[in-house]
Amino acid sequence: MSVLAVNNSRFWNRLMEMARVGGTEKGGVCRLALTEEDRIGRELFIKWCEQAGCTVTVDELGNIFARREGRDPELPAVLIGSHLDSQPTGGKYDGALGVLAGLEVLETLNDYDVETECAVEVVSWTNEEGARFTPAMLASGGYAGVFSKDFVENRRDENGVRFIDALEAIGFKGKRKLGSGTYKASLELHIEQGPVLEAEEVPVGIVTGVQGIRWYDLQVNGSEAHAGPTPMSYRKDPVKDLLPVLSEIYAMADAFSPHARVTIGSLKSVPGVRNTVPGELKVTVDLRHPETDVLNTMHDRIQQIVQKHNAAARSSFVLSEVWYSPPVYFDKACIDALQNAVEANGAKAMKMVSGAGHDSVYLSKVMPAAMIFIPCKDGLSHNELEHIEREHAVAGANVLLNAALELAQQPHKTLAE
Amino acid sequence: MSVLAVNNSRFWNRLMEMARVGGTEKGGVCRLALTEEDRIGRELFIKWCEQAGCTVTVDELGNIFARREGRDPELPAVLIGSHLDSQPTGGKYDGALGVLAGLEVLETLNDYDVETECAVEVVSWTNEEGARFTPAMLASGGYAGVFSKDFVENRRDENGVRFIDALEAIGFKGKRKLGSGTYKASLELHIEQGPVLEAEEVPVGIVTGVQGIRWYDLQVNGSEAHAGPTPMSYRKDPVKDLLPVLSEIYAMADAFSPHARVTIGSLKSVPGVRNTVPGELKVTVDLRHPETDVLNTMHDRIQQIVQKHNAAARSSFVLSEVWYSPPVYFDKACIDALQNAVEANGAKAMKMVSGAGHDSVYLSKVMPAAMIFIPCKDGLSHNELEHIEREHAVAGANVLLNAALELAQQPHKTLAE
Repeated sequence: MSVLAVNNSRFWNRLMEMARVGGTEKGGVCRLALTEEDRIGRELFIKWCEQAGCTVTVDELGNIFARREGRDPELPAVLIGSHLDSQPTGGKYDGALGVLAGLEVLETLNDYDVETECAVEVVSWTNEEGARFTPAMLASGGYAGVFSKDFVENRRDENGVRFIDALEAIGFKGKRKLGSGTYKASLELHIEQGPVLEAEEVPVGIVTGVQGIRWYDLQVNGSEAHAGPTPMSYRKDPVKDLLPVLSEIYAMADAFSPHARVTIGSLKSVPGVRNTVPGELKVTVDLRHPETDVLNTMHDRIQQIVQKHNAAARSSFVLSEVWYSPPVYFDKACIDALQNAVEANGAKAMKMVSGAGHDSVYLSKVMPAAMIFIPCKDGLSHNELEHIEREHAVAGANVLLNAALELAQQPHKTLAE
Repeated sequence: MSVLAVNNSRFWNRLMEMARVGGTEKGGVCRLALTEEDRIGRELFIKWCEQAGCTVTVDELGNIFARREGRDPELPAVLIGSHLDSQPTGGKYDGALGVLAGLEVLETLNDYDVETECAVEVVSWTNEEGARFTPAMLASGGYAGVFSKDFVENRRDENGVRFIDALEAIGFKGKRKLGSGTYKASLELHIEQGPVLEAEEVPVGIVTGVQGIRWYDLQVNGSEAHAGPTPMSYRKDPVKDLLPVLSEIYAMADAFSPHARVTIGSLKSVPGVRNTVPGELKVTVDLRHPETDVLNTMHDRIQQIVQKHNAAARSSFVLSEVWYSPPVYFDKACIDALQNAVEANGAKAMKMVSGAGHDSVYLSKVMPAAMIFIPCKDGLSHNELEHIEREHAVAGANVLLNAALELAQQPHKTLAE
């Protein structure tokens, strides 16, 4: 079979048209979940889906599914999509790219009169950003059973408005039962939101999983003292005592390079007065790695480091883990399909791991899933200046198209194993 | 001549009586400059001085001088004293100890019918603390010509009240001309406000000078990045880059130990978000040393350290000096007199350098000066829990007495040379 390609202009023009819904002066988008802008965006998307001959259904949390039927309607379908909501000062592509690429896949299958074995569905998930209702990936989490329906419905925005009331207000509380539908695979195209593809000059990333994350608070207790009258030898200086601890924690990132990440995001001295040795330091540590075993080793290692210095230093250290999100491994068959599509398209691609959360993380708990990344300028995202190259968007959509097609043409085996 | 000793009970009882003026529930003192409490404290002090037969004069900034005449009224006098104002949650001894020890010296000279060659004057300086009117040591600075009279008079408290209006309101704008009087020496007894004497179990410190201070802002500019999608090798992490800089700055304190002090009082990450590599760090550096040459060397050294890392690291560093207070060297003859008094009293003593500012710093610019320290518990000061041992207060007062007496008995030479 020859390699299909999306319609470059139709795809790009629709991306630009969607970007005008909630478009900001600085060239970004403000299309917060379940607002009037979100409603307009959803209706535009549904109009295009219906024009493409799809059957559109909306579930109880407002997730929109547009189905292009396959030869056998009883077979599990292939699901492709992302989200249409944005950050308050978001960009044009975060989410919308994946939804409209999904639609473009269906349009292209129409253009070429392709009959797939199973159906292909485009999905737009509600409130992925977590900007209006926390946490992020709220309705895909609801779909996957990570959050209960009741939990999602009762989330409140900063004005106290409940998710379910906002959903009803824009007319998008659907009848389709949450969690229904049977899917053999899920694919999501998204901007990288990081600097790697751009720096490596690779237009397509095949995302094999998502980093696991461990968050810690590191409290360093020294002893407040006047900067003048207190000789160095009398001090219990938490800044001085912290230095070798942080050096060793950073060295851990080298030991497990290139995938390990160590971030000291917040560092605060108390009382924070120029001529006083701080009594305490409050430090946060964010450790990431895509492999469970390595992340567990890093977890053991940081505790050893802190324990060692707690015994040796004058200051005392208290390390508390505050959150753990285990690594996500995407599905091998989905990854293979993406790899085949890359090769068929002659695209340059690299395998990579996502550092950020996506709807696909939750979907991967209930169906085989994988993702495609394309570069974004300077790794910038959640920013009105978010920017991508049109050729990268098209390359990503073509990989999505051909991978979805391969998966939708394999009626007889289950990819879940 | 035999060694004189102060009247232990009279001295201590007066300290306790003065501590009740503005006394707080927690055992501290709130006697802010030029408040009603300050007025009551001043009048109590003046009453005691007049009962002791002194001539009391008040200068244009409210500084109080109580004079016990010597054999030759034309000779320059010996000045002893400190201040009666306190921090809002101050202790009983910071300042009051030195003023009342000064008074006790005069009382003891009376008790033993000692006629000194020159006069001895006790002084209480206005607004030493800087708690109500900034800066600290305001009226001794005015006396010494460090601040103009106009500058001092127009300082405002946080309610906008001018110094001069507050001074007039409590009836303490005196007629004695600012800066008048001729003095051959100034001695001040004060609590150490540091931990050294207590730790070394030495009741008396002979203060030979005051540390010089250099203050810097160190700005570290990195690049804000998401903790997940940004590999370590792509980061410009100001925390990681700061570590070796701070290590070298601390090492400088070791190189110039035991007198060098290095304090990183404030350390702040911007934006300070757990899952974001900080875009910048704001760091303060406080360097101190009692010797001008060494402090200058430290100044050169820190600039070299920052320069070196600015060239080598990914982050960029900007070091700005924001304040310089040169070291103060107290007068050798005054120090010798204190040393003689220590030996005559059989007291255990050590020479030391002050880390904090005192009225004597400004006085030393216009007359020979030195100080005596006594231990305070845990080095604690500017705190209602400030505490001293009665025997140390008495030991300090006895050194003050005998040193003042020696100086007041030497009519024929000038100590200024």
